[in-house]
Amino acid sequence: MAKITFQPSGKSIDVELGTELLRAASQAGIEIETPCGGEGTCGKCIGKIISGKVDSDSSGYLSNEDIAEGFVLTCRTKTLDTPLTIEFSENLGSEGGQFGNSDEDISLVRKELFPKEKEFEPLAKKIFLNVPEPKTNDGLSDIDRLKKAIQNELGKNEIVFPLQVIRSVADTLRSHDRKITLTYVKDSNRYIIINVEPGDTTTYLFGIAVDVGTTTISVQLISQHDGKAIATATDYNSQVKCGLDVISRINYAKRPERLQELRNLVLESINKLIFKLCDKKQIKNSDISDAVVSGNTTMAHLLLGLNPEYIRLEPYTPTLLKTPYLVASEVGININPNSLIYFSPAVGSYVGGDITAGILCTDLASDTQNIHLFIDIGTNGEIVVGNSEFLLACACSAGPAFEGGGIDCGMRAATGAIEKVDIDSETGTPKYQTIGNVKPKGICGTGMISLLANLLLTGWIDHAGKFNRAKTSPSIKIAGKYGYYIITGASESGTGKPIQISELDIDNIIRAKAAIYSACSLMLKHIGITFNEITTIYIAGGFGRFIDLKLAATIGLVPELPIEKFKYIGNSSLIGSYMVCISQAYKEKQNVIANRVTYFDLSNEPGYMDQYTAALFLPHTDLDLFPSVKSENST
Amino acid sequence: MAKITFQPSGKSIDVELGTELLRAASQAGIEIETPCGGEGTCGKCIGKIISGKVDSDSSGYLSNEDIAEGFVLTCRTKTLDTPLTIEFSENLGSEGGQFGNSDEDISLVRKELFPKEKEFEPLAKKIFLNVPEPKTNDGLSDIDRLKKAIQNELGKNEIVFPLQVIRSVADTLRSHDRKITLTYVKDSNRYIIINVEPGDTTTYLFGIAVDVGTTTISVQLISQHDGKAIATATDYNSQVKCGLDVISRINYAKRPERLQELRNLVLESINKLIFKLCDKKQIKNSDISDAVVSGNTTMAHLLLGLNPEYIRLEPYTPTLLKTPYLVASEVGININPNSLIYFSPAVGSYVGGDITAGILCTDLASDTQNIHLFIDIGTNGEIVVGNSEFLLACACSAGPAFEGGGIDCGMRAATGAIEKVDIDSETGTPKYQTIGNVKPKGICGTGMISLLANLLLTGWIDHAGKFNRAKTSPSIKIAGKYGYYIITGASESGTGKPIQISELDIDNIIRAKAAIYSACSLMLKHIGITFNEITTIYIAGGFGRFIDLKLAATIGLVPELPIEKFKYIGNSSLIGSYMVCISQAYKEKQNVIANRVTYFDLSNEPGYMDQYTAALFLPHTDLDLFPSVKSENST
Repeated sequence: MAKITFQPSGKSIDVELGTELLRAASQAGIEIETPCGGEGTCGKCIGKIISGKVDSDSSGYLSNEDIAEGFVLTCRTKTLDTPLTIEFSENLGSEGGQFGNSDEDISLVRKELFPKEKEFEPLAKKIFLNVPEPKTNDGLSDIDRLKKAIQNELGKNEIVFPLQVIRSVADTLRSHDRKITLTYVKDSNRYIIINVEPGDTTTYLFGIAVDVGTTTISVQLISQHDGKAIATATDYNSQVKCGLDVISRINYAKRPERLQELRNLVLESINKLIFKLCDKKQIKNSDISDAVVSGNTTMAHLLLGLNPEYIRLEPYTPTLLKTPYLVASEVGININPNSLIYFSPAVGSYVGGDITAGILCTDLASDTQNIHLFIDIGTNGEIVVGNSEFLLACACSAGPAFEGGGIDCGMRAATGAIEKVDIDSETGTPKYQTIGNVKPKGICGTGMISLLANLLLTGWIDHAGKFNRAKTSPSIKIAGKYGYYIITGASESGTGKPIQISELDIDNIIRAKAAIYSACSLMLKHIGITFNEITTIYIAGGFGRFIDLKLAATIGLVPELPIEKFKYIGNSSLIGSYMVCISQAYKEKQNVIANRVTYFDLSNEPGYMDQYTAALFLPHTDLDLFPSVKSENST
Repeated sequence: MAKITFQPSGKSIDVELGTELLRAASQAGIEIETPCGGEGTCGKCIGKIISGKVDSDSSGYLSNEDIAEGFVLTCRTKTLDTPLTIEFSENLGSEGGQFGNSDEDISLVRKELFPKEKEFEPLAKKIFLNVPEPKTNDGLSDIDRLKKAIQNELGKNEIVFPLQVIRSVADTLRSHDRKITLTYVKDSNRYIIINVEPGDTTTYLFGIAVDVGTTTISVQLISQHDGKAIATATDYNSQVKCGLDVISRINYAKRPERLQELRNLVLESINKLIFKLCDKKQIKNSDISDAVVSGNTTMAHLLLGLNPEYIRLEPYTPTLLKTPYLVASEVGININPNSLIYFSPAVGSYVGGDITAGILCTDLASDTQNIHLFIDIGTNGEIVVGNSEFLLACACSAGPAFEGGGIDCGMRAATGAIEKVDIDSETGTPKYQTIGNVKPKGICGTGMISLLANLLLTGWIDHAGKFNRAKTSPSIKIAGKYGYYIITGASESGTGKPIQISELDIDNIIRAKAAIYSACSLMLKHIGITFNEITTIYIAGGFGRFIDLKLAATIGLVPELPIEKFKYIGNSSLIGSYMVCISQAYKEKQNVIANRVTYFDLSNEPGYMDQYTAALFLPHTDLDLFPSVKSENST
């Protein structure tokens, strides 16, 4: 016997001495087109020997140079008595794909918060099995023999076969001499079989983490063989056309066909991203065997087609907080149809699974000494304060401004977004920077913060966010009641239209930041502490890789505190989902967090409107809260 | 509070004193159209008070005579402090339907073999629940509160909610003051929720038993409230156009799209019958909450879309023998989509679930003293011999002749089928009788047996099944090589064409009966007993309510034995399925039977072809086996 490992898939198989490599590849479940029927004339089966020796006669097709470099026609090559590694080029299709270590999205979170090696345990696992041969009158069906083989390896638990798996068993067993790879999930005392594949594909296993935001959706592809995040894709939630925030979506969903429409839209968005990732990494979506989905409670309801109406009606009771495992085909997420989808547990109608995922990216739940604050800036702003003894959460409707929603030239943090704007204090003209250094297409959340803060610091806008009509700048246009700041004209713009921010846009941004800041202050007031007593302020949100927190404090989005107290952790809903996807211990942690969080209802709190109204200024009506802006002003 | 019972559905509900009956009906989940909006002017909500007193003012619409008879406008009538029974006419739609005690199909089996009251236990059960009210910040979702209510009633087991049920929970809880009826299944330690309905519908629960034959399909509707079979419908399996027997179907299924076609065809047949039964009994198919399906191993594979190829290839290994519970929506059977479908367990590739169901209708598995024989005459003939100590089964391919298949004027035992033909010995002319006493449309299995036996006894055909060409009869036509027996000309026929049997048809019938008889003899020979040592011969098959076993012995389909030894038990696959559908104890019994049966492979038995060839005569080449035919001959 000789072991053959196929790259780049990493699949391996033990074969008899003298086995043709093309046949071995097929036994390992690697499909290679051979239009010539294995006659050595089409060259489609060419591979490169990376290590090991073979008995090959590829001279009829390959040049001596190619042969010297290790290339062989696998249909003309047989194994010798040595382990062998052979590599196929990527364009072989579904088997290809070199996975880079593209963990840029998760690098924003301290690595020590991540699951350690001993905690690495995906929900869906793979096992290679050798199923015994059927015998006449043994009274055993294929499923019976497969069951026995599984129970021999994994123990005597109940085994659940979905019908789709049952359908594939007979042919799969017979195509590779009863050598198969099983994908399974252990749930309570049962093994649920997700997939049965021919040959040994144990190193080839994928999962996805999904963040379903009100405005944007992100999907991260994870190699569940080693727990590495290998690619991420983000796009708008197609539901935005049916309403910008959760309340308008809930209203839209009142008619059953519209609820169905919202469900279809979000599924379409998710599935497009999955398709994109699979295409990029050259894997089949059916190779994805599990998924963790996190979203606010309304998003989770809409995705599942649940009537969200009662989320917004007293006493604010959702259908589900902890969602059971659901089958992918039933949910409508296009991965292996038998996979189980896990939804991050929610705390209440306004504190969802995105927040229990997000807390995993912080020290909030574990610190026995210090109190930390977690602010997730999304269309809904959620704030959690606590430590190992208490966790208190509240939510406020910030609106989608920081994600680019409701802002004329707004866009999310993607290539072409203006993420930084400096203002010449004399002329009021801008110097901007775009993500990817391409022509600007719009302005993202960090760009808006930068623009507003610098306009304020240079005196081109006042504390109410209105342009200083006493001065003139070529970049400022006053048209009727409203002023506009033109960042770039049509000629320089990537869209062919000027990119500008109006006073109405600025109002939107101020309302968003006021909602978040006042919610934070009120919650701290409620528990009787000040911002100074907070050890870390974790800022989460879809700001990309960058948010200037000093400027965020300048406009009053966050309190003014020493910069080292802030920690920007990016899309913590996605990163927390990633952690849960690669670790069942972290799934357990997240559940403990969900049970521990207490919901603090802002709307019932006296003084809420006062606090909010007071925050509707840049940075705030009470400048003592923002001493550096105050001193800047007095100069 | 007053209890109101609504007929004919039997639903009931407790309501406050003074509740309007129309509103109470709606709370109980009974939909009544009220085009006038409950203004007392359209008359659509009329009901009849069967017992109890009401406070009614229906005088504006109803006559005094109507009112004296108990009719009321339910929108103008309120409850008083007494229990009330009110009846709506059947044309109210889904709620209607008087269930007769139509157990004609099950009357062929001795009642003492049926589940007793203590053994009556359907898989899916109903329970009425009062779910607690949600409270602000109780941290409980609708599903959480529902779970608690279920666990209070049923115990602390895990509860599984399918997504479709989760979707309906919020509105159902809120439509009837959190009074609901739950349909559930207990599987191992889990409760699987099938349905959540508003109000109390506990007496309204249905199941189906399904016999999937190679040629015909029967579905029986069962009221799972009392375990009564309330209607049966039978039709051809639409797959017949793709091949008459299992081998030809397996061959047809070799291409995946054809396997899918066969699956669609059988599902179409089953679902049409379900629709017919629901329409007849005025119930919704979603009110059917479980199903037991029995069929031979190939039929079960095709219905589930499993590749049947390996059933006919050595070593004859099917994908499944014992099928796990499968969800109705996944299988494609149109009952409540969350219902669990149970497939009767098979013994081997050629002894299927129809036989383990059939044995339940006999004493075979339980008799500690006597040996019994069970012959299921279908397209495949299956024979089981045994008692409480052993059960041996074999199968032979009889072909569909006795079900009307492969016979020019053949049809199944339905209205219009000739079921009896007497022959005038002088003239050779027939006197026939049809099912339902209507014009004949064809000839069924019992009719063929009657015709052939009487033609043989009167000397119009010989032992080889050929017409006596020495005599002439107005009913016999010789055309070229073949003779024809004309039972009726075109004018008397219900189809406008003559109804006749050719010598080729007779050959088919002889091959069918020879296959069955020789299989029986060979199996008895194998275990070393004779027909005389058998206590009962159970004959099963789709012969309708009647088979003349004396005439069946005359043609050699069954051995010649005292008539009291025979017991015709009809479609035992369907009746056994009915038993399993109403009793989990019988499901257990059937599983024990499946484990006990040993398969006897006829094709490996020396002498099989000799036995078969010897039986290709009427009744047999060895007339000593059929002494009464022999003596008839010698007279």
